[in-house]
Amino acid sequence: MTTDQRPIILTGDRPTGQLHLGHFVGSLRSRVGLQDSHHQHILLADAQALTDNADNFEKVRRNIIEVATDYLAVGIDPSKTTICVQSHLPALNELTMLYLNFVTVSRLERNPTIKSEIQMRGFERDIPAGFLCYPVAQAADITAFKASVVPVGEDQIPMIEQTNEIVRRLNRQIGQDILPECKALLSKTGRLPGFDGKAKMSKSLGNTIVLNATDKDIKKAVNAMYTDPNHLRIEDPGQVEGNVVFTYLDAFDPNKEEVEELKAHYRRGGLGDGTVKKRLEAVLKEMIEPIRDRRNELSKDPDYIMDVLKAGTQKCQIITQSTLDEIKHGLGMFKF
Amino acid sequence: MTTDQRPIILTGDRPTGQLHLGHFVGSLRSRVGLQDSHHQHILLADAQALTDNADNFEKVRRNIIEVATDYLAVGIDPSKTTICVQSHLPALNELTMLYLNFVTVSRLERNPTIKSEIQMRGFERDIPAGFLCYPVAQAADITAFKASVVPVGEDQIPMIEQTNEIVRRLNRQIGQDILPECKALLSKTGRLPGFDGKAKMSKSLGNTIVLNATDKDIKKAVNAMYTDPNHLRIEDPGQVEGNVVFTYLDAFDPNKEEVEELKAHYRRGGLGDGTVKKRLEAVLKEMIEPIRDRRNELSKDPDYIMDVLKAGTQKCQIITQSTLDEIKHGLGMFKF
Repeated sequence: MTTDQRPIILTGDRPTGQLHLGHFVGSLRSRVGLQDSHHQHILLADAQALTDNADNFEKVRRNIIEVATDYLAVGIDPSKTTICVQSHLPALNELTMLYLNFVTVSRLERNPTIKSEIQMRGFERDIPAGFLCYPVAQAADITAFKASVVPVGEDQIPMIEQTNEIVRRLNRQIGQDILPECKALLSKTGRLPGFDGKAKMSKSLGNTIVLNATDKDIKKAVNAMYTDPNHLRIEDPGQVEGNVVFTYLDAFDPNKEEVEELKAHYRRGGLGDGTVKKRLEAVLKEMIEPIRDRRNELSKDPDYIMDVLKAGTQKCQIITQSTLDEIKHGLGMFKF
Repeated sequence: MTTDQRPIILTGDRPTGQLHLGHFVGSLRSRVGLQDSHHQHILLADAQALTDNADNFEKVRRNIIEVATDYLAVGIDPSKTTICVQSHLPALNELTMLYLNFVTVSRLERNPTIKSEIQMRGFERDIPAGFLCYPVAQAADITAFKASVVPVGEDQIPMIEQTNEIVRRLNRQIGQDILPECKALLSKTGRLPGFDGKAKMSKSLGNTIVLNATDKDIKKAVNAMYTDPNHLRIEDPGQVEGNVVFTYLDAFDPNKEEVEELKAHYRRGGLGDGTVKKRLEAVLKEMIEPIRDRRNELSKDPDYIMDVLKAGTQKCQIITQSTLDEIKHGLGMFKF
């Protein structure tokens, strides 16, 4: 049907809040790079977001537009990447329901990602069934697009394994390799810590820098940034490891060489936090300014954002429905 | 939208085999009666059948037509009752996925019906996730049709409770009684035993009488029928309780008075099994003959069956999609 031979990527976000620098480093930046070499689909996973936000539909709905705006602001190009809204792809639900018959409850309970997320969210025995099942829903997402490449963090590898188990089971039962197995594309950079030094960056912790942060926001965040608590006098040697200012410089400063020199200087003493922070502030301001400007521009035209989402979703409806039909036909389901 | 004020019924069967006299007594007969006083929908629950037949899609597909033919043969009138195919109602999957966020895993595991069915099917810890979730899928079925009456066996009452919990949760969250709670309509007659006396009637046990049984099949089944094993000589008193011939006479003989006389006679002695069996054979032959004839006629015209299913399913697509839209709107989900 298509002559596009580029590998298919499926990626996405749960729209539960505006994106921030953590997303920029972890995924957005590489998506902008991947959209030329890959056939990239980005899923606004609002249905999945509901698995742990069932009492807050409004938040999820509102953030679809916010996150889509973030995408366009950082340079994701809708003529190269299809951006779509998960809840408007009914084939995904049908695929999920089908796959749930191929996966046992104990298999889901053994999923390490689910296990740790259950702990993280404090669900314990009150896990919503939808949450337990979401790795299967993810398998439906990935396979519906026939994605062979899935950018994930280290902690999401069990999701890829679950998907490939379903793929193999399905191909075996159909007697034909209808679905491709997929590979994790691991992010090269580690997870960006919050500016307070906490490993987890989150809106609720108030330790993020959003993509439309003002110069004032940036200054404030950098000033509050966690450094080396034992580096009391400028002339003292300072520690670079765990020092968030340097972590951010590593992530965002285009001049790697100078950053290395700064690190050496800081380590041997004589370089004050203030100087390093000033540099980071300038780097972040320069990087964020065009994103913020573009984001502010885009925000003035919500109809355009909606049009982009609509067009992308319509394309993806056709793709996912076509895969579903192929699978149902292969399995021998009833057809009128 | 509709001025039809009759209560809405949702009922259905898993299409895993041809229907038999057990179904006739348990549901089919009353459906024929209910279709005038109620707005009745019958769901051919092929998607649900897959929750424990994931390795046998072919069986489920084939039996959709078989069961639909059974429906029409017993007198279910497609101009009064809509017959539809579950797997062709995509809104049901979407509703199920939505509801799964409102139900906890432990709540599903506590469901007594699921518990006993897990034992019955020997699933133990290898329960397919789809099977654990099927009460939620049933809640989606029932609510999608806004059914207020659901004919069930005693053992299915927990399903109704699960449905009403979801209904209340949803109405509360939406702030409006969009969905009606539903009531179980319990079958007046108990479960019909297999002709061998086993409580469970099933094709695999070979103890059923199908709806197109030939006179020869009927004779053979009645001859093999379990009676009172201690009733050795005609003149001895016999036991009526647990005597399948009398259970079937109770279920099918239109002349209740004569059946009571026969029971009294059998109890005091002097009435042979052969005589009672002859009567039952005649009763069954007379009852099954028109069903069988009609079924054989219908089997010659599979296009007609398909047309009935198609028309019913199309009607139900509109109904279920409309409920889904209403719920999504009520909850505040994203809309283009």
